[in-house]
Amino acid sequence: MYSEKVMDHFQHPRNMGEIEGASGVGTVGNAKCGDIMRIYLDIDENQIIRDVKFKTFGCGAAVATSSMATELVKGKNIQEAMQVTNKAVMEALNGLPPVKVHCSLLAEEAIHAALWDYAQKN
Amino acid sequence: MYSEKVMDHFQHPRNMGEIEGASGVGTVGNAKCGDIMRIYLDIDENQIIRDVKFKTFGCGAAVATSSMATELVKGKNIQEAMQVTNKAVMEALNGLPPVKVHCSLLAEEAIHAALWDYAQKN
Ligand code: FES
Repeated sequence: MYSEKVMDHFQHPRNMGEIEGASGVGTVGNAKCGDIMRIYLDIDENQIIRDVKFKTFGCGAAVATSSMATELVKGKNIQEAMQVTNKAVMEALNGLPPVKVHCSLLAEEAIHAALWDYAQKN
Repeated sequence: MYSEKVMDHFQHPRNMGEIEGASGVGTVGNAKCGDIMRIYLDIDENQIIRDVKFKTFGCGAAVATSSMATELVKGKNIQEAMQVTNKAVMEALNGLPPVKVHCSLLAEEAIHAALWDYAQKN
C-alpha cells in the first residue's frame, strides 16, 4: 500500500522537532480529519532556509510528506521554497494512495504559512 | 483540542513495537482514512495477557488510543480484555474530538482481531 520511501520517512522522520525563536512559524489544520501540522523555519540574512523542523498530530502519510518536504526546502531560498508543491513531494516519495493525498497537503500549506509569517515579520 | 492525557500518550506511547512469535496478532484497516493498526498479544497458559504491543500508520489519536488500550488490557484475562471497549479507552483519555472517534475504533478492533486469532490457534 505504501512505497518504501514513504515507510522510510514515516519510521525515520527527518527534521522532526521545534526551532526556538524561528524566523517563521506556520500552523495549519485539516478540516477533513482534524489533524494539525506546524512548521518552523530558520531563515538567514540572504533569505536562505538554514533550518526547518515540523511537528504533527497527523497520520503516517502526514509524517512522511512533512519529512520529505522539509528535506526539499532546506537550503533553498524563499522563492524556490514557495515552488515546492505537494505534487513534487509526493513524486519524491514515489506516490501515495488516493485516500491519503489530503494528508500530504498539510505540509505544503504549513510551509506556505510559515513563509507568510516570515514575510509579515520582515 | 486534545486533552493532556491524549498528548501524553501520543508523545510517549506505551507498548509500541512488535512481539515475535506472538500468541495472537490482529490487523485492521480504517475505511474512513485508509490507516492501519496491528496488535500483538502474548498470552500465557492461564489465558492472561502477559504482554501486548502495537504498530500503526494512523494519526495521533490512533497512537494515543492504542497506547491507552494496551495499558488497559495488559495483565487481564481474555474475557476481561474482550470487555475493554472503545468507550472505556476514550474515557481513560478524558475524551477525543468527534472527528477523531473513528481513529480510536482501530485499537478496539485490532485487540478483538488478535484475541480471535489466538482463539483460532488454540
Ligand atoms: S486519521 Fe486515520 S487513524 Fe486517525
